[in-house]
Amino acid sequence: MQITAYAALKAGDDLSRLEFELAELKSSDVLIKVQACGLSYSDLNMIDNDWFCSTYPIVPGHEVVGVVEAVGCDVVTHAVGEKVGLGWHRSFCNKCEFCLSDEPHLCAQAERTIIDGHGGFASHVVGHERAVIKIPEGLSPEFAAPLMSAGVAVFDPLLAFSIKRSAHVAIIGAGGLGHLAIQFYKAWGCTVTVFTQDISQAAALESLGADKVVSSVDDMAVLDCLNSFEFILSTVNKTVEWGSFMACLKPKGRLHFVGLPLEHLELGIFPLVSKQRCISGSQSGSPQTIKIMLDYAVFHNIKPVIAEYPHQKINIAVADLRGGLVEYRAVINCEDCVGVNDADEVVS
Amino acid sequence: MQITAYAALKAGDDLSRLEFELAELKSSDVLIKVQACGLSYSDLNMIDNDWFCSTYPIVPGHEVVGVVEAVGCDVVTHAVGEKVGLGWHRSFCNKCEFCLSDEPHLCAQAERTIIDGHGGFASHVVGHERAVIKIPEGLSPEFAAPLMSAGVAVFDPLLAFSIKRSAHVAIIGAGGLGHLAIQFYKAWGCTVTVFTQDISQAAALESLGADKVVSSVDDMAVLDCLNSFEFILSTVNKTVEWGSFMACLKPKGRLHFVGLPLEHLELGIFPLVSKQRCISGSQSGSPQTIKIMLDYAVFHNIKPVIAEYPHQKINIAVADLRGGLVEYRAVINCEDCVGVNDADEVVS
Repeated sequence: MQITAYAALKAGDDLSRLEFELAELKSSDVLIKVQACGLSYSDLNMIDNDWFCSTYPIVPGHEVVGVVEAVGCDVVTHAVGEKVGLGWHRSFCNKCEFCLSDEPHLCAQAERTIIDGHGGFASHVVGHERAVIKIPEGLSPEFAAPLMSAGVAVFDPLLAFSIKRSAHVAIIGAGGLGHLAIQFYKAWGCTVTVFTQDISQAAALESLGADKVVSSVDDMAVLDCLNSFEFILSTVNKTVEWGSFMACLKPKGRLHFVGLPLEHLELGIFPLVSKQRCISGSQSGSPQTIKIMLDYAVFHNIKPVIAEYPHQKINIAVADLRGGLVEYRAVINCEDCVGVNDADEVVS
Repeated sequence: MQITAYAALKAGDDLSRLEFELAELKSSDVLIKVQACGLSYSDLNMIDNDWFCSTYPIVPGHEVVGVVEAVGCDVVTHAVGEKVGLGWHRSFCNKCEFCLSDEPHLCAQAERTIIDGHGGFASHVVGHERAVIKIPEGLSPEFAAPLMSAGVAVFDPLLAFSIKRSAHVAIIGAGGLGHLAIQFYKAWGCTVTVFTQDISQAAALESLGADKVVSSVDDMAVLDCLNSFEFILSTVNKTVEWGSFMACLKPKGRLHFVGLPLEHLELGIFPLVSKQRCISGSQSGSPQTIKIMLDYAVFHNIKPVIAEYPHQKINIAVADLRGGLVEYRAVINCEDCVGVNDADEVVS
């Protein structure tokens, strides 16, 4: 069987159609016919080789939702026809201390969907059954897709750090990650302040659940938030004045990165030591956390705000994301991306 | 009543004798006749105005042990004649959320012994009763003194982060803080690796409890420790290759600063995000934690290794600490530092 995908052939390239033969399914593999796939900055990082680990051709896309088309002989947790998703990881070793303690996303041998294989901008994608997650009723593919990576990235800290309902939380950045974080943290019960460069978004962010929107480039406005938050979630991929935001944390407060600036963090140690503060990061969550997050999203009617693109217009989506034009998550519709026998299509 | 103390009159000065009138004791104050006081890098930082908050004259010394000589009219927890200690903090507001939840060391109004008043290189020192801690039987003043700040600094994380007995822990630096950390973490049950510049200390550090001693300046030796530790405690006051030590942390591992380099921390964000690691800091602990730590030290026979100096030789102690000659904690004997009517003494 041939898979049709969209790939960058070298760093920074537009995506072009790539056909490749599906390898034989391993005993625990699940073959997913892709319906929708989110596009995030990590995909751009991989296209551009920003992390120096891209091997071309790169097929991006790690927020995949689709339907199980085939399963390996040992698969017991998924069946053909089931609606499923695949996120940052596509397989785990299932033997290490992390795999054995239900934290396989920390497994050193875990394969990442777009780093260690071909991702979801394709007709089909393959994942190990443990990494493949059943999508609950009530979530359509295009809304479920961004939850598979952005959703769990912002949700996981709520569980990992036992964030209290009473917590005053700030979210830096209001893009693909940030706009989901607002909804999850508000539904959790927190008081949510959003720092954004673009204060013209304020009304939209308030409608998503933000209690307060503050300009992240207005030093006085940031200063007004001194010593205010138990938890700050940074969703941006650019360096901001980390020292100012550290000062916005209460004693014992935590600045947590889910966005990934390429530049080094530079920060005084005194604000950590004198106030027992902490800096941390994460990018994903366990399969179990993804399941909990999806159910939580359905229960609280949390949905990404999406800009949909047909797969033929994937390069326009990439250009829009690069240009900061996407509100808030680009999702590629791959429903009719069916393979080499497809009528020829022009890639925009 | 006149207090005799040793003070720096301007930044970087030798300490000279200073006499000042004891202010009337407040209702909750405890007057301590000093017996012994530890000397640490923080004292040098204050003498030198490294933190830009020194107001001269500075009387350093925040690892104080002595005997209660008088108490304010409302003091109920201490009595004249009791053996007590005073550490980094000398008073708290007793009203804020941190004071009310038994974390007064995080109180924004907390007074620090050597920043907001005159410290313990003196005949007497005054502390609020909550900051004054009873010294348990079995600890002599010169051995108890370094525990009041260095001891609790390294001990507090064991409780704060629920460090497991099974944890593999590394300690960066083997000075005043580090040599106590080795003993506490070993007694706790952890497997303890020590990173030190001076590998000639290895046998001495092993006799304190180190399971392994690694040269912190041998890149290959550090590389051998990749992905090895749940917890790394940094006790040094100089910048080292933080990135290398981050890589020595397992997923979910924590690099915790109790030593305070003046330079900014510079570090990639990727190692935090990809492995869910964390960076944090602290410098003290609650009065309750100090009590627990002192009892723990007595029970496990944990003692600082000290170099004792009579108060008349305090400047030699300062010079020795600056020169890296102290193994491992300088303690000033203030027993016969009794006031202005004292026979004139020459300050070395």
